[in-house]
Amino acid sequence: KTLEDVLKEKGVITEEDYKEVTRSKALNYKPGKGFTLTSADEKFQLSLGGRLQTRYTFTDADDNGTSRDSNKFEVKRMKFWLNGYAYTKDLTYLLQVDFVQGGSSKLLDHAYLNYRFVDEAQVLAGQTKVPFGRQWLNSSGSQQFVDRSTASDMFRPGYEAGVKVHGAVAGGIATYELGYYGGAGQSTFRTSNDNAYAARITANPFGKMAYAEGDLDQSEKPLLSVGANYYRNTLQKSTATAFETNNVTLAGSTGWLGKGIGTFANGEKIDINGYGVDAAFKWLGASTQAEYLLGQADGHTSDKTLRAHGFYAQAGYCIIPRKLELAFRYSFVDPNRDKANDQQVDTQGAISYYFNKHNLKLQGDVTNSHDQSKGRTDDMIYRLQAQVIF
Amino acid sequence: KTLEDVLKEKGVITEEDYKEVTRSKALNYKPGKGFTLTSADEKFQLSLGGRLQTRYTFTDADDNGTSRDSNKFEVKRMKFWLNGYAYTKDLTYLLQVDFVQGGSSKLLDHAYLNYRFVDEAQVLAGQTKVPFGRQWLNSSGSQQFVDRSTASDMFRPGYEAGVKVHGAVAGGIATYELGYYGGAGQSTFRTSNDNAYAARITANPFGKMAYAEGDLDQSEKPLLSVGANYYRNTLQKSTATAFETNNVTLAGSTGWLGKGIGTFANGEKIDINGYGVDAAFKWLGASTQAEYLLGQADGHTSDKTLRAHGFYAQAGYCIIPRKLELAFRYSFVDPNRDKANDQQVDTQGAISYYFNKHNLKLQGDVTNSHDQSKGRTDDMIYRLQAQVIF
Amino acid sequence: KTLEDVLKEKGVITEEDYKEVTRSKALNYKPGKGFTLTSADEKFQLSLGGRLQTRYTFTDADDNGTSRDSNKFEVKRMKFWLNGYAYTKDLTYLLQVDFVQGGSSKLLDHAYLNYRFVDEAQVLAGQTKVPFGRQWLNSSGSQQFVDRSTASDMFRPGYEAGVKVHGAVAGGIATYELGYYGGAGQSTFRTSNDNAYAARITANPFGKMAYAEGDLDQSEKPLLSVGANYYRNTLQKSTATAFETNNVTLAGSTGWLGKGIGTFANGEKIDINGYGVDAAFKWLGASTQAEYLLGQADGHTSDKTLRAHGFYAQAGYCIIPRKLELAFRYSFVDPNRDKANDQQVDTQGAISYYFNKHNLKLQGDVTNSHDQSKGRTDDMIYRLQAQVIF
Repeated sequence: KTLEDVLKEKGVITEEDYKEVTRSKALNYKPGKGFTLTSADEKFQLSLGGRLQTRYTFTDADDNGTSRDSNKFEVKRMKFWLNGYAYTKDLTYLLQVDFVQGGSSKLLDHAYLNYRFVDEAQVLAGQTKVPFGRQWLNSSGSQQFVDRSTASDMFRPGYEAGVKVHGAVAGGIATYELGYYGGAGQSTFRTSNDNAYAARITANPFGKMAYAEGDLDQSEKPLLSVGANYYRNTLQKSTATAFETNNVTLAGSTGWLGKGIGTFANGEKIDINGYGVDAAFKWLGASTQAEYLLGQADGHTSDKTLRAHGFYAQAGYCIIPRKLELAFRYSFVDPNRDKANDQQVDTQGAISYYFNKHNLKLQGDVTNSHDQSKGRTDDMIYRLQAQVIF
Repeated sequence: KTLEDVLKEKGVITEEDYKEVTRSKALNYKPGKGFTLTSADEKFQLSLGGRLQTRYTFTDADDNGTSRDSNKFEVKRMKFWLNGYAYTKDLTYLLQVDFVQGGSSKLLDHAYLNYRFVDEAQVLAGQTKVPFGRQWLNSSGSQQFVDRSTASDMFRPGYEAGVKVHGAVAGGIATYELGYYGGAGQSTFRTSNDNAYAARITANPFGKMAYAEGDLDQSEKPLLSVGANYYRNTLQKSTATAFETNNVTLAGSTGWLGKGIGTFANGEKIDINGYGVDAAFKWLGASTQAEYLLGQADGHTSDKTLRAHGFYAQAGYCIIPRKLELAFRYSFVDPNRDKANDQQVDTQGAISYYFNKHNLKLQGDVTNSHDQSKGRTDDMIYRLQAQVIF
Repeated sequence: KTLEDVLKEKGVITEEDYKEVTRSKALNYKPGKGFTLTSADEKFQLSLGGRLQTRYTFTDADDNGTSRDSNKFEVKRMKFWLNGYAYTKDLTYLLQVDFVQGGSSKLLDHAYLNYRFVDEAQVLAGQTKVPFGRQWLNSSGSQQFVDRSTASDMFRPGYEAGVKVHGAVAGGIATYELGYYGGAGQSTFRTSNDNAYAARITANPFGKMAYAEGDLDQSEKPLLSVGANYYRNTLQKSTATAFETNNVTLAGSTGWLGKGIGTFANGEKIDINGYGVDAAFKWLGASTQAEYLLGQADGHTSDKTLRAHGFYAQAGYCIIPRKLELAFRYSFVDPNRDKANDQQVDTQGAISYYFNKHNLKLQGDVTNSHDQSKGRTDDMIYRLQAQVIF
């Protein structure tokens, strides 16, 4: 019992007084958000919290391949954030770091302020996720599997500093995002006459639908979201194996462009275009989501073109509502459509126990990873992960 | 209304009770400082907050030069701090990091504890700014322009670990600082028989004057501060292009010593002396500030000497008191006085809108940067920056 | 006086009400722990704080050696932590970073969650200290000297990600820890078919004894703890001077294995075994502690063996109870028992003033460091350190 409870019971304060004095608590906790501090005038609010993912991976390598079985322990993510509003509820901010990335420019994820003129018109300045790809925009903390699909990972631009105009129309029936960026990737700031652009729209005919996989709310009414996005950038190839920056994910070693860097001439600039369409649906504990992604890169002087595409489709169902979910996913990527035997197909099954939705969960998944580039090997990958948001 | 308000209104607690119980709030917010937690015994206090600067720069390169027009988006600074006192109000501490510096030893700015015997005699141990240069000591968060002047940047030593004896006399009419440092720069700890020293004094005849540019308090009485400082260090030149450390700002690529490294022989030790005088004045929304800085470096074995100097002068006026300010600055540097055609002159104008002083502001400035070393080119640099302290 | 105090005095609330409403405070401070936030339902708690060590070292080098006298200023440690429990008091977590390690993968110390089934059976997942070595497991913040002994430093594995099963039996009369790790060291996650293991047991016949040096509680009853531990790992030697990872402390440049890397052939895998026994005792302000450590490494293909051992013994006494302590330590290491003239012997004396136990203290120590490998030189090392936990 709090002091307010006692005073109300004794009749020292009235029911109305009680409501007023407890309306805004200076200190509050909400799962998934962390502890929240609010100033007395309610003009300032700060939440701080963290998210830990700790993972074990066992890889049963194909006997026909050259790899041996292996295993890995890792703290996959250790996020720490401060967010809230300042001076007015319309001016929000987010600072988020990932302490696993010590010693790397990838320490800083988000660092932005956002001003809401109205819901329909908002402007964000600073670093955040480039709005390209449903699964990429979906926090790594609210996935249905242990991590995102290979298709999503290979086509995502990553984090970037820039400005974004965005909004939600008619209570979230539709949303739009238009971003203008430096183009050099996470916490990497180039001085250049090139830039990156991204645009994304979604339609959510049955009402607002947050980016979080699995129907952990056991939605009584169906929820649907469809989206489309476009990304453009220009990067220079500086050496035989690297672009001017490797911090744009799709241009790094695990991205479609990074894998196909050999296509281009040293020193030339390359125009990059990315396209994607996606959809997600949830109802009564069932959820499904799919995304098709396409990339094309054109060398300015070599006149060479690299074309990549990929997709994933996944579905899950809570066999114990809100608690135990089974999910299945198929992911396909062809990082170079003009090259044979480089496709990768992942077939995955997952089982998740949600103690408190995505805030506290234990997830296991198993993947058959068929990689043509490694001699058509079929590796089996077993992963177990615990996540806590505190 | 708070519970205390209600109880006072109802006469449950007296006016005196009210004052006493609300005197120290366990949780409080103050703009520019962040949320503050205070222990019940008032022996411990911790404030935590952050400062975000997000910036866009467009450079209109001189057509006669070799550079092309370019632009840059960046999160310039993302500071996070914890400060307060512990065990007694006389023992204060500050921890501040800049998360933009992930992957760099420059992640940690301040990490010190300070003990106040009396205002006039205090000792600080740990890492903080080396006390050399008015504008350098002025937080990057309370500048009249988007950032510091080139003159200030080129002569500043940066952050260092060491000890500092300091104090304020007669309520701030005069201040002094005497520091003794490792000499290797920010978060860089050398084992050496060399050290760095710095000393700074200020006189503030009309009373204490904080380091913050612009007269945002619309001071009714004039405020004046004059200062002088000295810095000494010894660094070894280890390779053709680097000293034993590049983390002393003036010895790095943008400092006067770093630019003139070619003067010295490989392997020799170099004695560095820096001198500076400065003044600042504020009254009725007007403010002006100027600083003259001088550096000399002497090689032990080559007997070569490098001499540099520079200055800036700036003035601002709030055309809407406390809100809208215009400012003008002239900055001159000659990084090597014995070399022709290496001077840099920046002529700058700024406009700043202060929503809440330096805590929430939008600033734009334009610079004509005349650089003799680049063939007497005149680049025009346009910068726009939003800053929020939360 | 708090509002609760006033209301109790006035008889508005009863003694029982008072106890109930003040039982759990939303905001609390405890020295050594920092500020603690607790949710109203008491299911969530978060403490945040920091620990600063700032140090000055003067080395009076042996005149017969090649080194010259030198000195060093450093912020040795700047820890920041978030810890507490979430969803239930049995699920605890700890996030701790050391901001001095900016630019290094050693930024992240701890990142784990721990579930307590019962005191006797707990499981921890994530990154924390590998349980090998009493002094290593003793926080650098609660040492009797300025820092750990050379013997402890040379044999410790460091931090690692993995899983640990552990517990305390009969209220702490005995404890056990069994850990399974990746084996690549702090924040370093290898995919490999090798792993590391560690096991540790302690017996504490007179009751639970925390890892903290010095008898600062002036224990009225004697306290004794004896321990034994084992560590196993397999590392590949990748180049002439480096293993596949240098982030396992004992395999780094200051570890026994790192120093003896020349024993092995390039490319071969090496089995590493570590053994240790230790004891600590405290009574009436007196404390003593000793540890013997042994390491053996066997090359798979070269069939070469490297054998190392070392120990330290230290004792301290509070000449002013709880405040002023004198301590003495002897540390011996032989990093390669099959090689002559490589032993290091440190003889150390320390004086510590504890303003508030280990939470606020000033420590000085002097070391005679006799190093056979540097030509049997006797360097004298003087260190002064201030520590504050806020």
